[in-house]
Amino acid sequence: MNLRIVIKVLGNILIYESFFMLLPLFVSLFYMENSYIAFIISMLIMIAFGLALKSIKPTSHTIRIKEGFAIVSFGWLISSLFGCLPFIISGAIPVPIDAFFETVSGFTTTGASILSDIESLPKGILFWRSFTHWIGGMGILVFTVALLPAVGTGGFQIFKAESPGPTSDKIVPRIKDTAKILYTTYIIITISETVLLMLGNLSLYDALVHTFGTVGTGGFSSHNSSIAAFNSTYIYIVISIFMFMSGVNFSLYYELLKGRWKNVFKDQELRFYTILTLSGILLVSINLFGTIYDTAGESLLQSIFQVVSISTTTGYATANFDLWPTFSKILLFMLMFTGGCAGSTGGSIKQIRLLLVLKLVKREFQKIFHPRAMMPLKIDGRSVPSDVVANVSSFFTLYVVLFVLGTAVVSLEGIGMISAASSVAATLGNIGPGFELVGATQNYSFFSTPVKLLLSFFMLAGRLELFTILTLLSPTFWKTEK
Amino acid sequence: MNLRIVIKVLGNILIYESFFMLLPLFVSLFYMENSYIAFIISMLIMIAFGLALKSIKPTSHTIRIKEGFAIVSFGWLISSLFGCLPFIISGAIPVPIDAFFETVSGFTTTGASILSDIESLPKGILFWRSFTHWIGGMGILVFTVALLPAVGTGGFQIFKAESPGPTSDKIVPRIKDTAKILYTTYIIITISETVLLMLGNLSLYDALVHTFGTVGTGGFSSHNSSIAAFNSTYIYIVISIFMFMSGVNFSLYYELLKGRWKNVFKDQELRFYTILTLSGILLVSINLFGTIYDTAGESLLQSIFQVVSISTTTGYATANFDLWPTFSKILLFMLMFTGGCAGSTGGSIKQIRLLLVLKLVKREFQKIFHPRAMMPLKIDGRSVPSDVVANVSSFFTLYVVLFVLGTAVVSLEGIGMISAASSVAATLGNIGPGFELVGATQNYSFFSTPVKLLLSFFMLAGRLELFTILTLLSPTFWKTEK
Repeated sequence: MNLRIVIKVLGNILIYESFFMLLPLFVSLFYMENSYIAFIISMLIMIAFGLALKSIKPTSHTIRIKEGFAIVSFGWLISSLFGCLPFIISGAIPVPIDAFFETVSGFTTTGASILSDIESLPKGILFWRSFTHWIGGMGILVFTVALLPAVGTGGFQIFKAESPGPTSDKIVPRIKDTAKILYTTYIIITISETVLLMLGNLSLYDALVHTFGTVGTGGFSSHNSSIAAFNSTYIYIVISIFMFMSGVNFSLYYELLKGRWKNVFKDQELRFYTILTLSGILLVSINLFGTIYDTAGESLLQSIFQVVSISTTTGYATANFDLWPTFSKILLFMLMFTGGCAGSTGGSIKQIRLLLVLKLVKREFQKIFHPRAMMPLKIDGRSVPSDVVANVSSFFTLYVVLFVLGTAVVSLEGIGMISAASSVAATLGNIGPGFELVGATQNYSFFSTPVKLLLSFFMLAGRLELFTILTLLSPTFWKTEK
Repeated sequence: MNLRIVIKVLGNILIYESFFMLLPLFVSLFYMENSYIAFIISMLIMIAFGLALKSIKPTSHTIRIKEGFAIVSFGWLISSLFGCLPFIISGAIPVPIDAFFETVSGFTTTGASILSDIESLPKGILFWRSFTHWIGGMGILVFTVALLPAVGTGGFQIFKAESPGPTSDKIVPRIKDTAKILYTTYIIITISETVLLMLGNLSLYDALVHTFGTVGTGGFSSHNSSIAAFNSTYIYIVISIFMFMSGVNFSLYYELLKGRWKNVFKDQELRFYTILTLSGILLVSINLFGTIYDTAGESLLQSIFQVVSISTTTGYATANFDLWPTFSKILLFMLMFTGGCAGSTGGSIKQIRLLLVLKLVKREFQKIFHPRAMMPLKIDGRSVPSDVVANVSSFFTLYVVLFVLGTAVVSLEGIGMISAASSVAATLGNIGPGFELVGATQNYSFFSTPVKLLLSFFMLAGRLELFTILTLLSPTFWKTEK
């Protein structure tokens, strides 16, 4: 492990992060809030630490897989550790573990909160809280779409599975260019949503905060009642559309831009994602009609918003879905495990992996009738190599195992099964709200410090595709090599 | 599909089943109950139908994989359809769907009941109810240990995975001999438990009923409060030991008999099963001590019984574990998915499959450090072929998918998530009791007819290793071939 180069890059990350704080600093100054001091102090601390880390001279500049893993995992961790400073210094979230949890939740685009009265916080602070979603969302795009396939030439199945069609051979080959395209797309989408929300009579501030939460599939709001606060069909629909869009593989927007419509329409993951979302919307709206809402229109609207919000792992709410019938709740619980497409800002298992494991099941049935036939698994017309299949199956298993073991540990808090299970599903899948004690109108503040740390770990593990961060726990990882 | 030979074999099965009814008939006569008439009528109907089916002349006597699947699936179904006659005719369970549910639950060794007052039923009827566990248990042993590996030469991965060490190459090669060994072992274990229970002051009747429920990993009792009725540490321990033994691959008993101790101790599945069971016992007993029971001894005893009962998919109860702390309940819920070893009478996913998918996850981590290394998965020192790995991964996925979709459908009954989820887990895994509305002190009678049918289907699907019975739903299966 070339630890020096890792530390050097982490120093750079801290300095970049301090630049990002300029925006909430301006917001604080604009609203004439005292919290601007908290940002200045935080930035100074971060620049000081950043420069100190940067000053380390690495013996070699080679970044191999190990170093890449360490940079990504510690990058998210250090961003959260320093990113929570404004919360603590301003006194908005005085308890360090709570501030850390909230910041991890932000950068991992989870949206799980420990706050009970969000509206009592300064606007600058809330802006930073939501801005972490936007930064985290961009980070994850660069990580999974640009960086990983490029690093992944050394047999890196995870990331090949992540971006099965697009990346290097279709999109502009070099990482920098890919990253640039992603930035641009991400910024265009951000501006579009902000404008559309402002046309719905939201202030620039509210529009930005909720755009950050949407495009990063995060879910932090500046209102206690989340999106329900706006009580506007127009806003519900705009946010639903942009949540859905943020769950799509971002490489496809580039394809669209290049006029390659066919590639987009033929994309199997996009189709699967669309069908799954539409089915969920249909079933939930039928279930809601007559039981919770009197009109078909209201049932459909609420169903659209909530199904898209959960399945893209955003976590915004327009209704307290914890009061919905069990069938709807179970469908939402199921959707907590599907997540967005690979190469989107959405988290959880991801559509492409589900599609692949379901195809694997289908093939087993076919094998019964044709035991000797060779049947390669295909996605988008290409056969998927067997090591990718093994990796995806393992990911699925590991996800289930972490969910189950996590639920057991969290249940030691003396809470019910649904609360325990959904808190793990909602953090591991980077969703945010769960059910019962962690439902849409509740929050995570009641958990003990060890469980808050565990759930923070799950948010990071889920965000970084499990293997990345879990690898750090292995002693082999730290073994020095020649 | 050679339907004629399938029907002919089904006729034989019916006739065998009618012979099995002689035993409960004698019990009815012994206790001078009127229900003996129900058995005589049922037997006559079964013999008549059996002979009618047998009289069909097949054009060919070849039994291929398709026919094997049909025989096994319809065999279990027809046994249940006719096996429920005594319940209906005697008036013990007058509603046909309830009688069918109870009989499927018996033959699949599930133990889920629709009865609320068991003790009010005639002894002969209850004897038959428990005897179906014993018959089903033997059926499944012959199916998975003797029949399947022998049929499975044509690339039949499921069954190779079912019995990874033993079967044809170690055990006596021919099916009949293997079956004979299994019968003998099964009967020896049955007699041993019966005698040991009688030494604990149980009547021969009670001893037999509870031995049937144990060795078949079924769980039907003749008492409303299940095993708790005996309130005896000795009985609890005897049943715990025999439940554990019934969850072991029966081929290993043959190895023991032959003095090949080493093969038994080195068996990786047995080790995994033992470690998992002991860990469960330890964690649950610690959790129970001080919260539910005042003494360490009582906590340990209850933990041993309930952990073994659930993990072997038996489902007997010595306590209402629905009142235990969430942590214990979640551990028991987890154990509902582990099940017995392959080639045992236990159901659910099975230890060997879990061991294999966990090894697959472990290998993915190793691949990160050694991307180019060839790393075959090994169990008991032999590499597992990649198609077996794919099959086991698919089984795991399919199990999870059926559990999740089933839970959604069952939730339409308007019950809570835990009731819905645990009723599916408990039927698909052939366990019996679940939590809340289907908890240890509750029963399945409140479900609507469609859900009772669905859960019956799950019991059959789980018992017959999913693929067997689901294949019947495929149109390809029914296509006539030249």
